[in-house]
Amino acid sequence: MRYPGGVKIQPTTKKKINYKNRGMSLEHDLNITNEYYREKGIAYIYKKPTPIQITKVDYKKGKIIEAYFASPSTTDYNGVYQGKYLDFEAKETILKTSFPIKNIHAHQIKHLENIVSQGGIGFLIVRFTKRCQTFLLFASDLFEFQKENTSSRIPYSYFVEHGYLLEEKYHPRIDYLKVVNQYGGVSSDTKKTNC
Amino acid sequence: MRYPGGVKIQPTTKKKINYKNRGMSLEHDLNITNEYYREKGIAYIYKKPTPIQITKVDYKKGKIIEAYFASPSTTDYNGVYQGKYLDFEAKETILKTSFPIKNIHAHQIKHLENIVSQGGIGFLIVRFTKRCQTFLLFASDLFEFQKENTSSRIPYSYFVEHGYLLEEKYHPRIDYLKVVNQYGGVSSDTKKTNC
Repeated sequence: MRYPGGVKIQPTTKKKINYKNRGMSLEHDLNITNEYYREKGIAYIYKKPTPIQITKVDYKKGKIIEAYFASPSTTDYNGVYQGKYLDFEAKETILKTSFPIKNIHAHQIKHLENIVSQGGIGFLIVRFTKRCQTFLLFASDLFEFQKENTSSRIPYSYFVEHGYLLEEKYHPRIDYLKVVNQYGGVSSDTKKTNC
Repeated sequence: MRYPGGVKIQPTTKKKINYKNRGMSLEHDLNITNEYYREKGIAYIYKKPTPIQITKVDYKKGKIIEAYFASPSTTDYNGVYQGKYLDFEAKETILKTSFPIKNIHAHQIKHLENIVSQGGIGFLIVRFTKRCQTFLLFASDLFEFQKENTSSRIPYSYFVEHGYLLEEKYHPRIDYLKVVNQYGGVSSDTKKTNC
């Protein structure tokens, strides 16, 4: 059996694979999901590099010796799927009953608005770590929540009602494109949750 | 008239603005072009942050104290234009007669191949600085060159014949979307250069 990256794993004892691998971070799960999509030629979606403001470089050693983390102006993930532009932000929360909107920068929400206005597909992937559940919430549903609510937290129930529970398995780890494929272009009144 | 700090500025002669500002780098020109597109809601295209490998962080000061420039796995620019995924790499060359393909990493060319295979729009923007000319070359024409030639340099004449000379003006500085709009979905036998 060959794992992505060509690492050969000794198939001596039949290990029971924990498909859910719940200890792993959402970022890790998305990275291996995107790797899977790339290997299969399904989609080319990448996490953008962390924005860094470099202030001092030792050019002789080719080394950065002073730099700071900068605030991201866009979301973390974007790419192409069947010619379409896809853009999303992924966040984890340890809260059980709600997701604080402040976990996403205001300019990232504005960015998602811009993307959607240009016909791109924008969404959030939110993991409720204590529930071991990960949801996809289309940007349109995020905007609708903000329009109709003054609360700074999106209740868990809103994700259940308007979002899509993402099945976690071995490969692809979190098949979010399945949801994009089925509901990405469907208006909110005809769609239904798959959980 | 006095400026803060007491610096006196003589507002006597009306400076003539050099719209072309040819001393500016291609990156700068593309940044202000993309800013213009964003401001007008025409497209949302960004330069990705430079990939950095962080090796030491002073968490108390929130400061990175050791890091290295990493090799980019994708191209520098991507975004959405009318729902479509757009992806390109931009390079300058001081050579007058050719553009060395080695200026673009092999995995960046592979990335452009992947993008095009998924229906995305991929291209290069190449500036011949000594000629003060900037060309857009669609990825398909880059691949065709590589298929039919063993040379590691794309001759200037190939850009003239198969690429599109990008007009430089005040705003937008380099209107590459005009070319994408006109020729982005057109097969190579029906298109013509605009220089």
